[in-house]
Amino acid sequence: MKKILLMLVFLTAALGFASCEKSKGWKTVDGIIVFDTPERAPGQKSVLGLRTEPMEVVRVGFIGLGMRGSSAVDRFTHIDGVEIKALCDLYPDRVEKSQAVLKHHDLPEAAEYSGEEGWKQLCERDDIDLVYIATPWLQHVQMAVYAMEHGKHVAVEVPAATSLEECWQLVDTAEKTQRHCMMLENCVYDFFELTTLNMARQGLFGEILHVEGSYIHNLEPFWDEYQGNWRLAFNRNHRGDVYATHGLGPACQLLDIHRGDKMNYLVSMDTKSVNGLKLVKDRKQGDSFANADHTLTLIKTEKGRTIHLQHNVYTPRPYSRMYQLTGTKGFANKYPVEGYAFEPEQLAEAEVPDHENLNAHNFVSDEVQKALMKQYKDPIAIEIEEKAREVGGHGGMDFIMDYRLIYCLHHGLPLDQDVYDAAEWSCIGALTAMSIEHKSAPVAVPDFTRGDWNKIEGYRHAMPVD
Amino acid sequence: MKKILLMLVFLTAALGFASCEKSKGWKTVDGIIVFDTPERAPGQKSVLGLRTEPMEVVRVGFIGLGMRGSSAVDRFTHIDGVEIKALCDLYPDRVEKSQAVLKHHDLPEAAEYSGEEGWKQLCERDDIDLVYIATPWLQHVQMAVYAMEHGKHVAVEVPAATSLEECWQLVDTAEKTQRHCMMLENCVYDFFELTTLNMARQGLFGEILHVEGSYIHNLEPFWDEYQGNWRLAFNRNHRGDVYATHGLGPACQLLDIHRGDKMNYLVSMDTKSVNGLKLVKDRKQGDSFANADHTLTLIKTEKGRTIHLQHNVYTPRPYSRMYQLTGTKGFANKYPVEGYAFEPEQLAEAEVPDHENLNAHNFVSDEVQKALMKQYKDPIAIEIEEKAREVGGHGGMDFIMDYRLIYCLHHGLPLDQDVYDAAEWSCIGALTAMSIEHKSAPVAVPDFTRGDWNKIEGYRHAMPVD
Repeated sequence: MKKILLMLVFLTAALGFASCEKSKGWKTVDGIIVFDTPERAPGQKSVLGLRTEPMEVVRVGFIGLGMRGSSAVDRFTHIDGVEIKALCDLYPDRVEKSQAVLKHHDLPEAAEYSGEEGWKQLCERDDIDLVYIATPWLQHVQMAVYAMEHGKHVAVEVPAATSLEECWQLVDTAEKTQRHCMMLENCVYDFFELTTLNMARQGLFGEILHVEGSYIHNLEPFWDEYQGNWRLAFNRNHRGDVYATHGLGPACQLLDIHRGDKMNYLVSMDTKSVNGLKLVKDRKQGDSFANADHTLTLIKTEKGRTIHLQHNVYTPRPYSRMYQLTGTKGFANKYPVEGYAFEPEQLAEAEVPDHENLNAHNFVSDEVQKALMKQYKDPIAIEIEEKAREVGGHGGMDFIMDYRLIYCLHHGLPLDQDVYDAAEWSCIGALTAMSIEHKSAPVAVPDFTRGDWNKIEGYRHAMPVD
Repeated sequence: MKKILLMLVFLTAALGFASCEKSKGWKTVDGIIVFDTPERAPGQKSVLGLRTEPMEVVRVGFIGLGMRGSSAVDRFTHIDGVEIKALCDLYPDRVEKSQAVLKHHDLPEAAEYSGEEGWKQLCERDDIDLVYIATPWLQHVQMAVYAMEHGKHVAVEVPAATSLEECWQLVDTAEKTQRHCMMLENCVYDFFELTTLNMARQGLFGEILHVEGSYIHNLEPFWDEYQGNWRLAFNRNHRGDVYATHGLGPACQLLDIHRGDKMNYLVSMDTKSVNGLKLVKDRKQGDSFANADHTLTLIKTEKGRTIHLQHNVYTPRPYSRMYQLTGTKGFANKYPVEGYAFEPEQLAEAEVPDHENLNAHNFVSDEVQKALMKQYKDPIAIEIEEKAREVGGHGGMDFIMDYRLIYCLHHGLPLDQDVYDAAEWSCIGALTAMSIEHKSAPVAVPDFTRGDWNKIEGYRHAMPVD
C-alpha cells in the first residue's frame, strides 16, 4: 500500500507539473511546444481580404519622427491624394523638423504633438484616416491598438509586435474595429524581390520548396542613433530572432502563407553572445546580453515546404537579407550576387535570348537575367519605379510601400500586408526565444487567422480590376 | 481501490513504453533524443593522435574502380614512395582499365581481383599497407573493418558509414587494431578552404562563432553513372542529410571538433520530395522517395557555436558547398563568390595593401583578397600546389588529399582525418533522419572519442617538425 501511495504522490506531482505548464500559456503536444490560442471574442470577425470605403484623400497622422518616421513624412509629400494632418514625436524639435519639410513643399501646416501623451491626442482627432507609427518597437502595439480603437487605419513599423500577446492584441483589435493594420515591411517591395515574386506566380520556378531570408547587418556604427539606445537595450533583454520580418516577409509572400499554406512549427538555435555582450559592457549598460551574435531558424509549412532565417547584427559581414528561393524547376538568389538558374525548358516560352544555352548547374548569363528582369517586372513597380528611385528610401522600395498603402486605401482594396502578416512575421521573436531556451525544441507557429489560412488562393497585390 | 489499480496499469504501460524505447537504442533525456553509447571493449584504446612506424614505401590496394576509384589510381601514379600492389572491382573490365593506366606509366603490374569476394582476398594479402576503398556507400564499413582486421590502414570514400552502428564499428575496429581509418573527405583540401583555415588558426577572424557547409549539386545528369543506380536507391530509402561530409568536414576543422570543441546536438528539417520522387517514378524504381529535395540541419557545439548544413541533389541550382565562416572579427564566404570581410584593425599587421580602406560592411577588394590568399596560403599547399593543379582531381584537392595521406604514413604522423572525424561527419545522416522523423526534435551527437574530445588543442595538419 505504501508503494501505491508513493505512486499516487508521484502522479499528483506529474499532474501538478502539467497544469503548471498550462498556466504559463503553453503546453507540449507530441514533443512540440504549443502556445494557447485565445478564443475569438464575440463581435470580432475576420479581416481577411478587408476592403474599406474608397477615399479620394487619405488624411495621415505620423507618430514617431526619428530615423524612419521623418523620412516617411518626406516621402509622403511626393504622394498625391494625401493630406498630412498631424505630426507627433516625444521630442518637439523633431516635430518642427518635419513641419519644415512640409513648408518646404508648400504644404499646409500640420498639427503638432509631443511629450508622453501626444500620440494619444493625435489618435483622438477626428480628421485622420491613417496613423503611421514609427516609434521604438515596444511602443508599437499600444499605439496601434489605441489608433484602431479610435477608428483609424494603422501602418506600423517592423516588427509590429514583440511578444505573442502583443500579436494577438493587434489581430483582435483589427478584427473588433474592422480597421486595416499593415506592418511597414518594406523589403517585400525591393525590385529583385518584386520581380522574382512575379516570376514565381507565373510558375517559372516550378513548385517552390524552400525559401531563405535574413537580417545580417552589422549595426556597430548605428546603435547610438537609436534615441536612448533603445534598440541595443531591447536586444540585451531578448533572445531569439528579434528582427525577422525583412527576411520572412518576402519568404511568406513566395509561399502564400495564410493564402493557401501556413507555417506549422519552427526550431531555432543560436551562438553565444560575444560582440553583443561587448557592446553593453563597453557602454556600461549591463554585464549580460540575451541576444546571440548569430541566430538561426528553420520553419516547416503545412504543405511540406521550408523557410530558413538568420539574424546577426553584431559581426563584420557584408549586408545580406539572404533572399533565396529553391523551386523544383528554378532558383533565385539575391545576396551577395543576384542570379537565377532554371531547368532549360522553363524559359523556352519566355522568348529570352540564348535560352538553349541554359545549364541548370549555372546562373543564367547577365544578358538573359536582364531580359528576364525586364519581362517579369511586377505590374505594381512598372508605373511607379522611376518616381520611386527618384524619391528614394532604401533605393525606392520605401516609396513603393507607401505608394501602395495609399493606392489601396484610395481604391478601397485589401492592403498588400494584412494584420495576420504583421502577427505571423512578428511572432518569430517570441517563438524562437522559446525554442532556443528549450534546446531547439520545435515550437508551433500560431494560426492567427483562426482556421482561415486556406481561404484565399495565393498571394497577390490587389488591383482595381479585381 | 479500482482507481488505484487503474493507475497502476497506466504506470506499468508507461514504464513498458520507456523500456521499449530503450531497446530501440535511444531514449529521450530533457527533450533531447540520445542514442546509447556502447561501452569501449577491453583491449580497445583510443587512436587519437595515432602514429604508426614511418614507412619508406606505402604499398596500396584499391577496392572499387568506378568513378572515384579509377581516378584515385591515376593520381597515385604521380606520388613517390608508393607501390600499387593490387586492384579490385566487382567487374573485371574495370580492373583491366586501371591496370592499363599502370602500364601506361611504366609501373609494375598489380594483382587483379574481381567478383563478390575479390575484396576479401585483396585484404588478406600480406604485402599491402593501405587499402583504399571507393565502393558504393553501403559496402564501405564491412570492407574497412575487414581490412583493419587484417592489419591494413584504411582510406575510405565519403560517407565512411551510413548508420550509427556502422560508425561505432569503424571506431571500435580502429581502436582494437590500432590502424588508421581515414575518410577520404577531399573538400577540406580545396584551396580556398585550406587558406581560410590557416587564416582562422592565425586569429584573423577573431573567435569563430558560426560555420556553414552544404552539398548542393543537381545530380540529374549523373544518377545513371552509379552502377545499378545504387546512389539513387540509397536516397530513395534514406531520409536526412545523407551526404553531409563535404559541407561538415571543413566546418569541423574550423571549429576544432574533438580537438577542443564538440558537437552537442542537432535539429533537422526537410521539404517534401518532388523531384526525387519523380526520378524513381520515371525510372519505374519505386513510388515513394524518403530523401527530401532539400534538407536543412543546425548543430550546436559545446562551446556555444553553431554549424548550418544543407543537402539538395535534386533541383536546378548552381553547385555550392556553401562554405562560410562568421567570426567575431571577420567573415569568409566561398559560394557563389569568394570573399572576405574584416574589422579594419584585423589587417593592420598583415601588411596587405589598402587595409585602411577596409569597411566591415563590405567584402575586401580583389587586390586585398589576392594579397591575403597569397600571404596565408597553407603550408601543406605551398610545396604541392603546382603539381596538384597539374594532376587534377576536382581542381587539385583530390591530389593534395592523397599526397597528405601518403606523406603522413611515410613520416609516421597522425593523419589529417582520424576515425573519429569519419564517424562524426558520417553519423549526420542517421541523426538528421531521427530528428526529422520526430518533428525536428533535438538529437544528441555521440562523442565517438568517449570523453577525449578536449585532449588535443586545436586542429592542425601534422608536420615532421612537430
